[in-house]
Formats: sequence, structure tokens, C-alpha cells
Amino acid sequence: MARAKINKYWDEMRDFARKAWEMGRSDPRKVIFAIKMGLALSFVSLLIFWKGSYEEITQYSIWAILTVIVVFEFSIGATFIKGFNRGLGTLCAGILAFCFAELSVISGKLEEVVIVISIFVTGFFASYLKLYPTMKPYEYGFRVFVLTYCILMVAGNRTRAYTEAVLTRLVLIAVGAGVTLVVNIFIYPIWSGESLHNLVVKNFKDLATSLEGCVNGYLKCVEYERIPSKILTYQAADDPLYNCYRSVVQSTSQEETLLGFATWEPPHGRYKMYNFPWEKFVQVSGAVRHCAFMVMALHGCILSEIQAPPERRRVFSNEMQRVGAEGAKVLRELGSKIERMEKLSPGDDILKDVHEAAEELQKKIDHKSYLLVNSESWEIRTRPIPKVQEDLEETEEDENMELGFKSLSEAVLDLRSIPVRTASLPPCDVSNNMFRRWPSNLSTDAESVTKGNECKTYESASALSLATFASLLIEFVARLGNVVESFEDLSQKANFKDPVMISLPSGKKTIGGTWVV
Amino acid sequence: MARAKINKYWDEMRDFARKAWEMGRSDPRKVIFAIKMGLALSFVSLLIFWKGSYEEITQYSIWAILTVIVVFEFSIGATFIKGFNRGLGTLCAGILAFCFAELSVISGKLEEVVIVISIFVTGFFASYLKLYPTMKPYEYGFRVFVLTYCILMVAGNRTRAYTEAVLTRLVLIAVGAGVTLVVNIFIYPIWSGESLHNLVVKNFKDLATSLEGCVNGYLKCVEYERIPSKILTYQAADDPLYNCYRSVVQSTSQEETLLGFATWEPPHGRYKMYNFPWEKFVQVSGAVRHCAFMVMALHGCILSEIQAPPERRRVFSNEMQRVGAEGAKVLRELGSKIERMEKLSPGDDILKDVHEAAEELQKKIDHKSYLLVNSESWEIRTRPIPKVQEDLEETEEDENMELGFKSLSEAVLDLRSIPVRTASLPPCDVSNNMFRRWPSNLSTDAESVTKGNECKTYESASALSLATFASLLIEFVARLGNVVESFEDLSQKANFKDPVMISLPSGKKTIGGTWVV
Repeated sequence: MARAKINKYWDEMRDFARKAWEMGRSDPRKVIFAIKMGLALSFVSLLIFWKGSYEEITQYSIWAILTVIVVFEFSIGATFIKGFNRGLGTLCAGILAFCFAELSVISGKLEEVVIVISIFVTGFFASYLKLYPTMKPYEYGFRVFVLTYCILMVAGNRTRAYTEAVLTRLVLIAVGAGVTLVVNIFIYPIWSGESLHNLVVKNFKDLATSLEGCVNGYLKCVEYERIPSKILTYQAADDPLYNCYRSVVQSTSQEETLLGFATWEPPHGRYKMYNFPWEKFVQVSGAVRHCAFMVMALHGCILSEIQAPPERRRVFSNEMQRVGAEGAKVLRELGSKIERMEKLSPGDDILKDVHEAAEELQKKIDHKSYLLVNSESWEIRTRPIPKVQEDLEETEEDENMELGFKSLSEAVLDLRSIPVRTASLPPCDVSNNMFRRWPSNLSTDAESVTKGNECKTYESASALSLATFASLLIEFVARLGNVVESFEDLSQKANFKDPVMISLPSGKKTIGGTWVV
Repeated sequence: MARAKINKYWDEMRDFARKAWEMGRSDPRKVIFAIKMGLALSFVSLLIFWKGSYEEITQYSIWAILTVIVVFEFSIGATFIKGFNRGLGTLCAGILAFCFAELSVISGKLEEVVIVISIFVTGFFASYLKLYPTMKPYEYGFRVFVLTYCILMVAGNRTRAYTEAVLTRLVLIAVGAGVTLVVNIFIYPIWSGESLHNLVVKNFKDLATSLEGCVNGYLKCVEYERIPSKILTYQAADDPLYNCYRSVVQSTSQEETLLGFATWEPPHGRYKMYNFPWEKFVQVSGAVRHCAFMVMALHGCILSEIQAPPERRRVFSNEMQRVGAEGAKVLRELGSKIERMEKLSPGDDILKDVHEAAEELQKKIDHKSYLLVNSESWEIRTRPIPKVQEDLEETEEDENMELGFKSLSEAVLDLRSIPVRTASLPPCDVSNNMFRRWPSNLSTDAESVTKGNECKTYESASALSLATFASLLIEFVARLGNVVESFEDLSQKANFKDPVMISLPSGKKTIGGTWVV
């Protein structure tokens, strides 16, 4: 019994160790950070063995160690902010402690009362002001302020040497901060700006993957056997399509944090510019997110209760596929342009192809919009029905062939890993299982006579859902323009380099950048 | 000159003070938190004046003060977590320091080397492991661990009294933690669970406001003169409609944090239950968020480039209005049920009305779907056009009257505060300004002959956008079922009380809860 338990613990430990090792292999920056931290600590701890004048340094060396532990952060920007907070907090507390110390000495017998009251007042104001909305980044500074104030009052009160207490601490804190900065900046620095840049690029690529996955999934009539309740309650799930756009939507707070750090970082590496416009990166990412909400709505059509019949989807298959592919291409190209920090080629309209594709889709919808509505129930009695069925059958044959070709592009996102089934039910049976959560009371309340009508209603709703998908896709394309605009703004402000122009001898159009991919 | 500057600073200072005062008035918990912090600090600082045996307590009293400053957090849950981290970190570090101290004493001449290496190793492992994903909440514990370890090594090395150094500190940290907990719990406690509960309720209400605002705005043909670029890059903006749903979408990380704290809190107040299912609150909120994405898509229709002509919207005005109002009613009712922690009445189907409204809308669409497509360009030549225009004109008159009535419900969200204009352009002029960002290259590349065709295409896209709005609205209703399901799960698990049943003598249906509103 005990043996089994020990074995279990042992297995868990081994598992943990393996995962920790994996973490280091996949992101070596984490190992480097830990080594740097150890180094900085070891350097500072050498102060313990200080032999020479100013023996007190040994006694107070803990201040330098404390500073290193507290200030040393993963990225340079975060370290700067912490260091600044610590410095300012300590300084202010020092000045205040000086004043109150004088006061307490003057007040004679009431000394203890003055000290306690001063601590209460300091604690009150610092705690209150740190809740002030714009003070959030300085929360740590307030903590340091109160801490230092208390320490100085206590130490000063005991030894009566306020000046010495303040100065020694300030010097040791400066030593700790100095070691931290030197180690952190000069040994393999980890920049928040770099992380922000990568995050934005990743958002572009994730969204492209999601878009393709959505369009392909919809055209393949992928349906969730049972929608994971995690998607319905917006939690992280295993579905790759969902995860990709969710990570784009969720990255806001991470971006804000990285932006906060990045603005503190000095010019470095590829960002050799005073006042690098980091906030523009966040804006571009916001524009991508604005598109991501459309992809989300597209995915909503797959998750939806009301599904368009497969044969009608097939009619628009070619055009939708093309819009999806072109949209993803634009996103990927912009993403890699940001990655390489390259401007758009002046003559080249990156949106041309996707706009043409959207135009095609729009025209097709226009010509075949009778497939999107249920003309049977029109109040006008002149119905053009006869051709509908014929039209569907005809396209069905066309498309069977084309689907074989299309499955190639599905490699990007394999939806087969999720339990799905392909909708292939006849339109009217559909209403039985599509409306799983649809009002059951209606079917009990209403007479069975109205059932026929309802079935028709659902049928038309189901056709209309195809119109929704198409229309959302077109809106997605419209929003892409906004992404391109933000990108151009960024590339201007951040001085992106001009694209490498490769002019082909055969008089073909020169296309910048895309050749490199 | 200098005077003007001083005046400006003075004004800014006054402004800051006023805002800080306002903050306290609007949320008195913040004032109370600051007072409690001051109190706890003052209590602990009394240790400085300890006169009696164990004089060292005065010397080490700073440890108790430090613990208070570090552990004292806004909510009880956060305080518990910090306290736990601090306790565990200190204990582990104490044990480890003991071992290494023995080792360093044994190693004789190499003592200093052993100490420095041990500090490096400790720093390395603690920094590395705290980056492990599941270790995130214990980040602070690792920091305390390294800190305590270093302090003990330094102090012990200096005085050679490792045991005493460890014990005194442990006792003083326990004193500090004790004072913190007593003050924080027994004087006007601030619970994270309560905040989480309120946040979820707020999400329900915000979403209801946004939904009504969207539907009313769409039917009034509210259009943005210029879409604020903040909306296009998903940043906080002044638009109340946008802000309401944005706050619902953005609250994920806040909910996660509060959930993390709430699970640490003991049963209290209305949550007198061992293992209160706080995570269910987050799930309900997630389901609301899943609906919020639909409202977002609805708002997308208002922001869209492609707008449906006003006269066509008016045809469906009544039905859409009703779906919007009923949907908002369901959300508000569920919100107030959660607020009062009350179950749904067993016989009452909360979704009945909204489902009926959706059904009505669906039927109307079904009967008038010729308004949603552009039948002129059908490949089939039997067109039922003559009636369309007539139909539009007829409904227009109907609706003018009704709009007067409808503006009452607009009180919920006044869109007039945003610079908007009402779209009242004839359908084809529309394409000129609607497609602001639509491919301009097409109109230059293409011959002017095709322009007529394009105009038609846009016209049909514009009508289709109405279908999209309606279809998204219906999908929203379908998603409401999911919210109700999560709510029922929560009300079961959290033992919500049964609703107050008021049976009316006149044989009317008994409706639980709604009377209280």
C-alpha cells in the first residue's frame, strides 16, 4: 500500500522533471534567465565576505541581495520598471523618514506615539493611493515605500543613527540594482519588445490558420457531434481551429503587459530608434483582432444549431474557398512582412486578389440568391422553383470532382482530430437534430398540423445561414483593409525597410517580398 | 512664467486630490482597506517598543512588519494565498538553509565557496521552476524562498547561530501573518467571491444593454459618421454600446484572478457551503460571453461597410425589436436571479417568450425573403419584382407610426451621444459612401460599363446584410439556451434558494421572482 503510494509519487516526480526539462528545451530563454539570476545572486552574496573598512557592509549586505531578488525580472523592461519603483520608493521613504524622525525626537515623551501614528498615516495613504487607477504600474513602488519607511524608523529608533541607516541602505540597494542591470543586460538580454513583436506575428499566422480551417470546415460540412461545453462557455479547449482564434482574442492583456515593459527598454537590436512606436504594434494586433471576431462569427456558423444543407453550400464552394485562401494569404504575407520589418511594395496592392475573390463570391450570390431563401412561402405566387432542384443536382456533380482537389489545402488544419460527422441528411430531417436546443415547448404546445409549417421555416432558416456565412466572409475581407491601413501606419512610424525588389527580365510584374517566402 | 507653472501644478494636484476623494466615495471598500492596512502596521510596529525578556524581538521586529506589508492584500482570498506562499517558502528555505549550513561548517576552509555555490544553485532552481506553467500562482512563494534562504545564510554566517536565526524569524513572521489575518478578516472583510459574483451579474446586465442598443441602433439605421479607429483596433472607446460588450469579452482574466482567490476563501455570508462551486460562476459567465460574441457580430453589422437600406429594415422592425427586447429581458432576469441566488421556477420556461419572438421573426423572414435578395439578377427569368416596391412603401407608412412608440425603449442606451447620421440615401447612392474601403482599384481597372453591374452587386450585398443581422439575432437566441443550461447547473451546485412563489387568486399563472423586480 505504502509502496504503491511511493511509486506513484516517484512517477509524478519523474513526470514533473521530464516536463521541466522539456520546458527548458523548447524555450532556452528560461534556462538562461535562471542562470543569470543565480549569477547575480552569487555576485552580490560575495559582499558577505567583505573584509576591510566599513565592516557594516557585511551586516547590511542583505539589502543588496534583497534588491536583486526583487528587481531581477525575466525581461529587461520589467527589470527597469521594478528598479525604478524600488529606487523612487526608497528615496521618498528616506526623505519622509528623515522628517518624521526629527519630529519624533523633538516631541520627547510622545516619541513612541508619534512613530506609531506616522506609520499608520504612511500605511494608510500608500495603500489608498496605490488603488488609484493610473497608479497600477507603481503598485510595487508603494510597497517598497512603506517597507523602507518602517525599516528606517525601526532601525533609526534603535540606534539613533537615522542618517547612517538611510545612507548605507541606499548604497547597498544601488549596488544590488547595478549588479542586476549589468547581468541582465549584458548576458543574453531578453527583450519584451522582441516578445511583443513575435506575439503580433503569431496572431497573424494563427488567424490565417483559423480562417482557412473555418472555411474548409464549413464547406466540408464539418459538424460537431457534440459541441464541447468548453467552447460554449469560452474556455480553452483542444479544438485547434478554436484555439487559434481564441489565442488572438485573448492576447490583449498579454500585449498590454509587454507594451508596458517594452516602452521602458532602450533602443536595441533591430529596434534602433529612439521612442520606437511599440504601441503601433498593439494597434495592428487590435485590427487583426477586429478581423478575428469575424472568424469567430464564421466558426459560430459551424457551431450553429441551424445548418445550411450541404448541396447548397457546394454551389458556392469554389468562391468561398478562394476568398478564404486569399484572405489567409494576405494575413500570412502581412505577418511575414512584420516579422521581417519590411514595407509593402509601393506599386503592389496586397488586397487586390482577395477583393477580386470577394467580388466573385458576391456576384455568384447575386446570381444564385434564390438558393439562399425559401421562395415556396413567398406571399407572391410567381415562384421560380423548377430550376432550383435541377441547379443543385447539376452543381453537385461538378463539385464532387473539385472536392478531391480541395482536400489538399486542408493539410493546414486537420479537423479530423475532433469527433465530427459530415452532415448529409436530407433538408427536412435536419430540423430534428439541428434544433437540439430549440424550443421543445413549441412542438408540444402547437398542433401537429403546424409542424409542417415549422419544418419549412427551419428549412428557410437553414438556407439563410449560408447567406450569413457568405456575408460574414465578405465583411471579413472588408475588415482586412483596416489591418492593411494599421500596418502601413506602423511601417511608416517604425521606419520599416523597403522591400527587396526583384525585377524579372520577362516583363512580369515585380512583386516584392513574396518571393522570399 | 514660474508662477504659471506653479499654478498649473497646483491645479493638477487639486484635480488629483478630487479624483482620489471621488474614488473613495464611489467605492468605500478602498478606504476601509487602507485603514485596515494602517491599523495592522501600527499594531505590529508596537513590537519596536517591546520591553522585557527576549530583547532580540525589538531587533527582529522588522520581520513582522515586512510580513504585514507583503501579505496584506485587498481581498481575503489573496491574503490567504500570499500568507500560504510566505509560510511555505520560509519553511522550505529554513530547512534547506539548515542542511547547507551544516555542510558549510563541515567543509572548513571551503566554507565560503560552498555558501556561494549553494546560493547560485538555489537561485537557479527557484527561478527556473517558477516559470513552470502550473507554478504561476506560487511565484511569490519562490521569491520568498530565495530571499529567506539568503538571509539565513548571511545572518547565520555572521553570528554562527543558525538555529536562533531561523526560529526568531519564523516566530515573528507568524506574528505578522496572524495580525494581518485577524485585522483583515474581522474588520469589514472584503471577499473575492463577492466581487466575482457581482462581476458575473454585471456581465449579464451589460450584455442586455448592448443587445438592446444594437438592435435599436440597427433599426434606427444608426451609422457611424466615422468609425472610431479605437473600435477598429479593439481598444477601449467612449461608445457605450461598444464598451458594454467589450467589458463582457474582456473580463476573462479578471474572472480567472478572482476565481483563484475565491477558492481560497472560507465559507462566509451567503456562500455558507463547504467547497462553494465558484468555478460554475465563471462557466456561466463564459456562456454569457459566448452570447456576447454574437452581439459583437450584430454590432459588426452596424459598423459594416455594406448596409441594408432603411426601408427594408423597417419591414422586419417589429419582429427584431421584439427579439431584442425579449432577449435582453431574459438576460436581465437571469442576472437578477443570480444576484439574489434564486433558482428558476420549476414550471416557468424563461425562454418561452424569446423563442416565440424568434419564431415570429423567422416566419416573417420566410414570407418576405424576396426582400433579402436581389432577384433582378437571377439566372431564372421569372421574377416577382412588381410587388417588392409596393410592399416596401406600404410598410414604410406602417412603421413611421410605430417608431414613435419604439423610441421609448431607447432610453436604455442613448446612441445620440455618438456622432452618427441616419442612413436615408437611395439604395444605389449608398454604394458610393458605404464602400469607403472597398477596392478602389476595381473601379479604375474595370471599364465604366461594368460599373452598372457592380452597383447592382452591392445592392444585393446590402440587402443580404439584413439577412445576416436577422440570422445572427436568431443564433443569439439559440445561444441563450446554453446560458440557461449553465445557470441551472450553477443553481443546482450552489444550492440556490427556491424562488418566492406568489400565487394569484385570479387563476393567472404563478410567476416566480419576476414580481420582485
